[in-house]
Amino acid sequence: MKTDVQISQKAKLEPIYKIAEKMGLTENDIEIYGKYKAKINLDILKKEVKKDTKLILTTAITPTPAGEGKSTTSIGLGMALNKIGKKTVIALREPSLGPCFGMKGGATGGGYAQVVPMEDINLHFTGDIHAITAANNLLCSMIDNHIKWGNELKIDVNNILFKRAVDLNDRALREIVIALGGKANGIPREDSFLITVASEVMAILCLAENIFDLKEKLGEIVFAYDIEGNPLKAKQLKANGAMAALLKEAIKPNLVQTIENTPAIIHGGPFANIAHGCNSVVATKAAMQLGDYVVTEAGFAADLGAEKFLNIKCRKADLKPNCIVIVATVRALKMHGGIKKEDLNIRNLEALVKGMENLEKHIENMQKFNIPIVVAINEFPTDTKEELDLVEKICNDLGVEVALSQVWAKGGEGGIELANKVVNLIENKPSNFKPLYDLDITIQEKIEKICTEIYGADGVNYSKKALNKIKKFEELGYGKLPVCMAKTQNSISDKPELKGRPKGFKVDIADLNISAGAGFIVVLTGEILTMPGLPKKPAAENIDIDENGNIIGLF
Amino acid sequence: MKTDVQISQKAKLEPIYKIAEKMGLTENDIEIYGKYKAKINLDILKKEVKKDTKLILTTAITPTPAGEGKSTTSIGLGMALNKIGKKTVIALREPSLGPCFGMKGGATGGGYAQVVPMEDINLHFTGDIHAITAANNLLCSMIDNHIKWGNELKIDVNNILFKRAVDLNDRALREIVIALGGKANGIPREDSFLITVASEVMAILCLAENIFDLKEKLGEIVFAYDIEGNPLKAKQLKANGAMAALLKEAIKPNLVQTIENTPAIIHGGPFANIAHGCNSVVATKAAMQLGDYVVTEAGFAADLGAEKFLNIKCRKADLKPNCIVIVATVRALKMHGGIKKEDLNIRNLEALVKGMENLEKHIENMQKFNIPIVVAINEFPTDTKEELDLVEKICNDLGVEVALSQVWAKGGEGGIELANKVVNLIENKPSNFKPLYDLDITIQEKIEKICTEIYGADGVNYSKKALNKIKKFEELGYGKLPVCMAKTQNSISDKPELKGRPKGFKVDIADLNISAGAGFIVVLTGEILTMPGLPKKPAAENIDIDENGNIIGLF
Repeated sequence: MKTDVQISQKAKLEPIYKIAEKMGLTENDIEIYGKYKAKINLDILKKEVKKDTKLILTTAITPTPAGEGKSTTSIGLGMALNKIGKKTVIALREPSLGPCFGMKGGATGGGYAQVVPMEDINLHFTGDIHAITAANNLLCSMIDNHIKWGNELKIDVNNILFKRAVDLNDRALREIVIALGGKANGIPREDSFLITVASEVMAILCLAENIFDLKEKLGEIVFAYDIEGNPLKAKQLKANGAMAALLKEAIKPNLVQTIENTPAIIHGGPFANIAHGCNSVVATKAAMQLGDYVVTEAGFAADLGAEKFLNIKCRKADLKPNCIVIVATVRALKMHGGIKKEDLNIRNLEALVKGMENLEKHIENMQKFNIPIVVAINEFPTDTKEELDLVEKICNDLGVEVALSQVWAKGGEGGIELANKVVNLIENKPSNFKPLYDLDITIQEKIEKICTEIYGADGVNYSKKALNKIKKFEELGYGKLPVCMAKTQNSISDKPELKGRPKGFKVDIADLNISAGAGFIVVLTGEILTMPGLPKKPAAENIDIDENGNIIGLF
Repeated sequence: MKTDVQISQKAKLEPIYKIAEKMGLTENDIEIYGKYKAKINLDILKKEVKKDTKLILTTAITPTPAGEGKSTTSIGLGMALNKIGKKTVIALREPSLGPCFGMKGGATGGGYAQVVPMEDINLHFTGDIHAITAANNLLCSMIDNHIKWGNELKIDVNNILFKRAVDLNDRALREIVIALGGKANGIPREDSFLITVASEVMAILCLAENIFDLKEKLGEIVFAYDIEGNPLKAKQLKANGAMAALLKEAIKPNLVQTIENTPAIIHGGPFANIAHGCNSVVATKAAMQLGDYVVTEAGFAADLGAEKFLNIKCRKADLKPNCIVIVATVRALKMHGGIKKEDLNIRNLEALVKGMENLEKHIENMQKFNIPIVVAINEFPTDTKEELDLVEKICNDLGVEVALSQVWAKGGEGGIELANKVVNLIENKPSNFKPLYDLDITIQEKIEKICTEIYGADGVNYSKKALNKIKKFEELGYGKLPVCMAKTQNSISDKPELKGRPKGFKVDIADLNISAGAGFIVVLTGEILTMPGLPKKPAAENIDIDENGNIIGLF
């Protein structure tokens, strides 16, 4: 069997200018980055907005080590829609180097449903995330520099909110002490690094409409409080102009293609557990300007990525999704039913029924947004007919369409059933999208609505710190912002060990952060970390260059 | 008067593929990065090596706040050589973000002698330096990860040599403590960040001949000692394959143009005070393959960049420079003669004569390498005829050619006198290049040779630490490597306050580091810092995006 990187290296790519041409983009609309990558000039968004594009969100059940294949399904669905005559553009997030060298490997789909060139996309791509890291860390260096040179703004060194960033899994940088070694090195203080994809700068880039909006939003970042407790903004340090200058190319969406030459716009990559989890607004809007159908995805399961896509991104960017595809696999459902990874190849209808509770909860959750739903079963060779039939029956009993997706093995051809069901639903069932909560309710009400209605919790426990922060943020006038939950991806609850459909739990809110530039309040549940660590055997150990100069070991 | 960025934005650029075409590069030899940047495929170096290309090194007198204009002169000379019919390619270093946001602003020449697009080159360019940062920090994360998961290699946490890096001026990261907060975050230890341009990974990229050589050299990095004092290499952590994969694009030289459309290859950017200070070997070799004349430069003054260019880079890469151009300005010479910056506009022949000692010492130093020399006086509007004549007379008395360079005001046209003198010298006076020292002498002998013969010191004082390191490196078999001096750029001595031609001093050697991958020993004099700080008013405060989306405030 061929590996993903082997399949991708065999793909017949078209020069990217040809892909762009077919989308109606002129030479001036794009900037070529090598033969197979381009940046799209944001001027195309200044044209009259195309109104009738259909927007499809792909989300998934709660991830397990068995894998669910959400990116693979998104890419395959996009290819299949093209095959049935719908001009489709795929919009995805760009991968962080952290998971690439940690556990997960690449993030560009799999099998015969991949975006290419996968080595480039997985390794720096066009440099956007590095530009974000640089902009993030420029602000940090200007904060400590300001303190060193007299601290005119009276920055409280014990109350600096904005953290340094690195786009790697580096747990040793979670808690550090900086500026040691005497006066020449500044004033010592505690600090920590985030992974860049959790940085507010990433969130801002993903929510900005253009470079000026980006600059304004960067200026609103509350980087610290002064010694009297007043918030201090990046614009008071005159940092946001230079930060925006660093992001002048990074704000432009990147165009690549699938292995079947379907256009894919890959741009922005916040994680969905510790950030808002969707590709950039400009990428989605560019895709909608250029295609009749757009397939986009949100990270992790529907309780995280989809909830934030709908409550944060769609609300801010005035997007109205027409259909939600929830991806599941028989294997992952059986794991939610209590089966161990080594036993997944054995047919087990009982475990499957039990595991289906996870899918059912995600279906119920998505139904609360009034958008039509299709379940996509991402087929594995070990799935039995009885198991597939059972999933279909349970979904049909819930009144939800199901389609088998074979895109991993067959590419677009394997997604035609899914594509037809999606198109049929969109054409026949109108979407009446409405966010889950109004912005006018209090921060606590927003948190509680998400925890009870989406996570299925009985209630919420707040730490004293969290309650103080809520009070502070409401006093400062940030009470009308949406909330961005930081929560484990491994459970619908905030307890990673609770699989399936957790019940009888309360969500623990440990802390809150203000992202005034991005325009949301980050709510940290339990012990969620904004800097992952590497496993004992990092994926990096297997990544190498072979004798022909090709990258190997990247999955 | 127009600013640099205004002049550059008015330049009539040719599409980069046209520049490449004129150099004889085919479509497959390059990868376009936007309209005006390209990467050059290293396969062009596999062709039969062109033997008769003339290599010109530009260096300078000791820098002062008055400015010397070395990059401007290099670029102007390249343009002028083209004007007189010599097919010339310029090879330069790529700028770090540190100085760009700190004191210096951009590093792409000035006036009518610039490389363009200057905003792109100064801000990330094609992402090479970020790729280096990522490769550097991947190794660091793997070191701490290895320690956390049982430390099989017995890494001594008090003896880790390899440091994290960031491409910014961030003094707060000079001395830090990492991995605090309990076992989940690793084992606490002292650490520090370098600016990326001081990283061994940057040096390796600049000295590697191709991607395989790069991978091998990365594997040789000694990142720590084990608890028994044995050196531990990056290949023992299986880190170098992934590091090389991260650098697969960064190793390819970047092609841009001057505002007169002369080809310029800009690649690799180690600082010359804390690293070896030259553009990459592959950039120089690519330029030599494509042009009949190549103008390259080494950082800071001739005691730093040129010394290392000749003793490290030319020796390793088997390059034989044909001519050295030493750049000076009347203003800077007067500062070396004791005049304050505010009085530089006043004619002062006495101060000029005194300041000429600095230039004289650099001339003498370069003569030790048996390469023909031309002094280029980079003209300022305030220079008087008497002053210019005096400089010429003193140089002529030393038997050295002098040319007035007006490239800042006039572009290539203003460099024709210099170009003619350079060509004349190359055609009539053979270069008999020989490094200053043999590799067979001891580390101490190498240090002492550079300190006495180049810096003009009476001798060398070693710290106890330095002496122990020398002993250790020789025991480990690294005694035959060249030395890379880390020294202030503000004096020919190691005391920044000593201007002109310092005498009667000894050089203080504080510490040594082994760069076994790059293949040299770094020798740290006095209090040299490998992480700069920002000034009270960082240049970043003035950098902004105007209402048309153009970058402003970048010089």
